[in-house]
Amino acid sequence: MRLNKIGEFGLIEVFKKMIKLDRSVVVGPGDDCAVIKFNANEYLLYTCDMITEGVDFVSKDKPELIGRKALAVSLSDIAACGGIPRYAVVSMGLPKKFIGKAQKIAKGLFDLAKSYKVNVVGGDLSRSSRLTIDVSMSGVVEKNKLVLRSGARAGDIVFVTGELGRSILGKHLKFTPRLKESRFLVDNFKINSMIDISDGLTQDLSHILKASNVGCAIYETLIPRGRLARNLADALYGGEEFELLFTLSRKEAKRLAFKKKQVFKPIGEIVGKDYGFRLIDKDNNETTIKPKGWRHF
Amino acid sequence: MRLNKIGEFGLIEVFKKMIKLDRSVVVGPGDDCAVIKFNANEYLLYTCDMITEGVDFVSKDKPELIGRKALAVSLSDIAACGGIPRYAVVSMGLPKKFIGKAQKIAKGLFDLAKSYKVNVVGGDLSRSSRLTIDVSMSGVVEKNKLVLRSGARAGDIVFVTGELGRSILGKHLKFTPRLKESRFLVDNFKINSMIDISDGLTQDLSHILKASNVGCAIYETLIPRGRLARNLADALYGGEEFELLFTLSRKEAKRLAFKKKQVFKPIGEIVGKDYGFRLIDKDNNETTIKPKGWRHF
Repeated sequence: MRLNKIGEFGLIEVFKKMIKLDRSVVVGPGDDCAVIKFNANEYLLYTCDMITEGVDFVSKDKPELIGRKALAVSLSDIAACGGIPRYAVVSMGLPKKFIGKAQKIAKGLFDLAKSYKVNVVGGDLSRSSRLTIDVSMSGVVEKNKLVLRSGARAGDIVFVTGELGRSILGKHLKFTPRLKESRFLVDNFKINSMIDISDGLTQDLSHILKASNVGCAIYETLIPRGRLARNLADALYGGEEFELLFTLSRKEAKRLAFKKKQVFKPIGEIVGKDYGFRLIDKDNNETTIKPKGWRHF
Repeated sequence: MRLNKIGEFGLIEVFKKMIKLDRSVVVGPGDDCAVIKFNANEYLLYTCDMITEGVDFVSKDKPELIGRKALAVSLSDIAACGGIPRYAVVSMGLPKKFIGKAQKIAKGLFDLAKSYKVNVVGGDLSRSSRLTIDVSMSGVVEKNKLVLRSGARAGDIVFVTGELGRSILGKHLKFTPRLKESRFLVDNFKINSMIDISDGLTQDLSHILKASNVGCAIYETLIPRGRLARNLADALYGGEEFELLFTLSRKEAKRLAFKKKQVFKPIGEIVGKDYGFRLIDKDNNETTIKPKGWRHF
């Protein structure tokens, strides 16, 4: 097998086959967080995200925002599962040229941690040629509020939070993780599936479709484009948005629409698997979507 | 403040002052693991370690051993607290030249995980210019078996496992994390303090002395030198040994000596803080030890 031809998701599939899990693991690798048995009412959530200079940020970005982003991406994973973040450990590979900025990086990270009541309980500091920050985060979620990628059903309405497009121009460093919105949703509605948009709307929606074994139609006119989006493609394929993408039954969707929360916008509908994944344009023409987005390799 | 002058431990002290922890955190940053309230009988342990190409291994090292080491260093941290490892998440920053070796790296890591019944529940894969692997691990420890760096008392005997010296010639990639020995100790003895030797015997022992507010005498003739150690300095200052360094009362030490477990060797005695930290040579001359070992910056 030529691993350099199979890309990130291929490699992850190869890794997953090598892993052995015991019965305390409710959900292993493959969702936004791992889910572990914890106590009578709650599961433990567990996730990690590494950000690297030159890939996830550049050296001239504000150090506070680099540190902030390192924590924010993991907060977004906890939000995608409906959970409450609790603890984090932080590893930092620090190049010489960043030593003078280390305190500002830490401040950005710790300030965000404080505002979400996340305990940063440990860390590891080492040398590195490129600044690299890895955050591992754990959180809790009530058993009946856990949301996975795999629960979408035909008939569900697909929603997205916020607006999409060219996050890379700044939002990717400053986004507010959608924890408040996530908890509002799981506290008040039966959410069938959820993911955060890190690789792009179509790619992340296709993760839900694959995990749930369903198809989907999304409507061009409903995709919320931010003011920086130049065209539909910017909204469909741009990564690092860290918005929530979720599905819930039509009945629940009506209740949600009734709340008049502008942040939640319906963009399409889950259908049977045979339909595939299609975009419906303003003239009602249907095109099959090739999920496309950020490729790590 | 000039951070590039204060080194790793200075930077960590700066970071620690910026952190806010709630009452669920029993021990925050600064020990081998963080300790978190979990259930009536057990604490949760939480740690992370990042290894980087050119610092912790070189690109020509066997890929299986690189992956193995990434997990082993965290297992050693759990051992240092007397715990049982349970879950890990793994972030990997993968350069192009390592893509073909990714499967072997993963195999080395997953095989070691299996042999210690550690569930690798998640991960993150991204591009990087240098191979970087960060493992975050959680484990459990019975409340009455938790061992910290801070519990050493005057009168304690200091023990070390195994033999020391020039781990860098190979052991650092192949060491067996001392989990079995750690559990033997906490199951059968009252261990007052423990740490794993990652930065060097004198440096890591000085962490125990500082955390416990005590002094110490170690005896040159008792320091166990491995066959690769060319001199005393190799055993005193060499990092990456991943042996356990622990203290227990004289009475408990006698019981331990009686067990005739060759792996545990007494090397000195904890005394009052005013004495400082001294080495006693074969002619009974005392020299003050300047803790020295691996400096990350």
